[in-house]
Amino acid sequence: MYERPEIHAMAGYVPGEQPKRNGTVKLNTNENPYRASEKAYDAIREICDSRNNASGLSRYPNPPAQPFREAAAEIYGVEPETVLCGNGSDDILTILTRTFVGSGELIRLPRPSYILYASLAEIQGARYEEILFDENWRLPPAFAEAKDGLKLVFLPNPNSPSGTVLSKGTILEIAERLPCPLIVDEAYADFSEFHCIDLVSQRENIIVTRTLSKAYALAGLRFGYLFAPPNLVEQMLKVKDSYNCDALSIAAATAAICDTEWQQENRRTILATRKRLTEGMRTLGFAVPDSQANFIWCVHPSLKTASHKPIYEYLKQNGYLVRYMNYGVSGDGLRISVGTDEQIDECLALIRQFVSTEISSGTSLT
Amino acid sequence: MYERPEIHAMAGYVPGEQPKRNGTVKLNTNENPYRASEKAYDAIREICDSRNNASGLSRYPNPPAQPFREAAAEIYGVEPETVLCGNGSDDILTILTRTFVGSGELIRLPRPSYILYASLAEIQGARYEEILFDENWRLPPAFAEAKDGLKLVFLPNPNSPSGTVLSKGTILEIAERLPCPLIVDEAYADFSEFHCIDLVSQRENIIVTRTLSKAYALAGLRFGYLFAPPNLVEQMLKVKDSYNCDALSIAAATAAICDTEWQQENRRTILATRKRLTEGMRTLGFAVPDSQANFIWCVHPSLKTASHKPIYEYLKQNGYLVRYMNYGVSGDGLRISVGTDEQIDECLALIRQFVSTEISSGTSLT
Repeated sequence: MYERPEIHAMAGYVPGEQPKRNGTVKLNTNENPYRASEKAYDAIREICDSRNNASGLSRYPNPPAQPFREAAAEIYGVEPETVLCGNGSDDILTILTRTFVGSGELIRLPRPSYILYASLAEIQGARYEEILFDENWRLPPAFAEAKDGLKLVFLPNPNSPSGTVLSKGTILEIAERLPCPLIVDEAYADFSEFHCIDLVSQRENIIVTRTLSKAYALAGLRFGYLFAPPNLVEQMLKVKDSYNCDALSIAAATAAICDTEWQQENRRTILATRKRLTEGMRTLGFAVPDSQANFIWCVHPSLKTASHKPIYEYLKQNGYLVRYMNYGVSGDGLRISVGTDEQIDECLALIRQFVSTEISSGTSLT
Repeated sequence: MYERPEIHAMAGYVPGEQPKRNGTVKLNTNENPYRASEKAYDAIREICDSRNNASGLSRYPNPPAQPFREAAAEIYGVEPETVLCGNGSDDILTILTRTFVGSGELIRLPRPSYILYASLAEIQGARYEEILFDENWRLPPAFAEAKDGLKLVFLPNPNSPSGTVLSKGTILEIAERLPCPLIVDEAYADFSEFHCIDLVSQRENIIVTRTLSKAYALAGLRFGYLFAPPNLVEQMLKVKDSYNCDALSIAAATAAICDTEWQQENRRTILATRKRLTEGMRTLGFAVPDSQANFIWCVHPSLKTASHKPIYEYLKQNGYLVRYMNYGVSGDGLRISVGTDEQIDECLALIRQFVSTEISSGTSLT
């Protein structure tokens, strides 16, 4: 056995299911159902069509993805030195873990939440502790307490799978009490009523991470970034691969983030469909927390002791992939991404069908 | 200070200089001077033009980059399960380090060689030891010896900056004696007379890494891969980011590697220019080892105690960037990438000019 014992022992993170069947509607990984800004595609085409060797793909890309840093800085009113770019949010989260957490040290995360954080700790040979959300998706004081070896705290806001948020005031309070960086993972913040980027300049230990996978419909491009105090960005630049962002993604991401009109229009559409989906599921008897993300979390109260898995399976048989999550003591449920209105209506019709069948056959779903 | 002490202490890897001036000829980072196969660009255009959402950029890419694995497996006569893909060779080398080397453990590398390996060890909190090449670019028996904590050995073949190779027999002998994986870094092997991919199936501890940056003119795309025994690939899949290769790079890399005609034609051209460059530099009095890569290593014997830096600076002033390397006790020199014939002729003319000026002004370059 050549691999490190920690790697040997771990199961490995399993990314969202990829459909085997063509035509399957993916509502399981919170991708955007619409096509990205054409300006992003045009930026890619321009590189392909350029006959100038220096702007084609023969050359290494700009190491810190400077054009994107400058664009993001202008849009959010910060300095380019506060921006770090990565090969998707995953790369950003990996860089954070490697910069701040040594072997045997401690990472804190809420539960239920994004399950990748635990895998990142395992790969790094670090420990992690999970602090449970209460029934209202709030966190207890323990989440902000100092502790021996605690080096990094992850807080997705909005959270997955719930879509719920903690307020900016609460986040600031948590950061004030913590002895280490607090990572506010804003993968879904473009669908939320607020974001925390302005908190970065207020506290030396708040870092906000972002992705273009969800709100910019560019999951296939792999581009994520973060805002952090410049002295921390400087350290993270040492840890990232020199050329972690490729030339196509730098150009496309820069074009996409500058197309604020596309983003706002897309946001309006997703939020309207989210309302439709939430109301539809509630009508069918599901408990659905108010979501500020592009997905909703659905738990049927009559199923408390049984499983939501049969609904997931029924949908899958009928060409709809949603995410079935089982968090053990915290229970299970379905996380459904906001698709197009048409997709959501069909998905709701299938769930309605399943629920009514279950009722007529006398099972617990009544 | 929030960062790990190892990160705080390290200087950080400095990638090859990016020219500030437009029109500068880059002969410093071993990029290919030609445009990549048009089939690679067409694969990118196809994704941009597709109106089918499932094949655009809204969706997450294929996690293990399966289309590329299958293409590479067919071309090299191996199984897809032996192929691991990465976001450039850098990502591949990072994955290797994280999979096999724990904090405080040991990495071995030759010197002078690729300086990134030492940075990878530092980021991982690992130790590294450098074994010196002899004057003929051969390695002493110490390079293959077992040692406490030794977990990974890097061997670039062809080596940088020398362009020289160790034979397959020698590599097999080294692997047989080592208690850990031997990474044969074949970033430049497409320009060499042989490669070691077939050794992977002969030994459980030989891993061969590859990149599309050099021989496929796709440095801007970020795509690297490796061949390893399937049980080791399985472990590395746990360590890599789930979606480490983006949809555009998977499509373009697959198209590029399948265009063997483009690659062979490009190889012939580069090798012819390499010969021209080598002979030109030797005529000017430089010692140049026979290179099997797309660059050559040039040391002027009359400069043994002085520096090659003034030549680098003179070239830079005149629009030519080459790589100045200073390895301390191993001496300094210039690494010059093989450009087009025209670029090489101009570069040689500039060096000739510099050398003759130096002679007339009576300095050491006589």
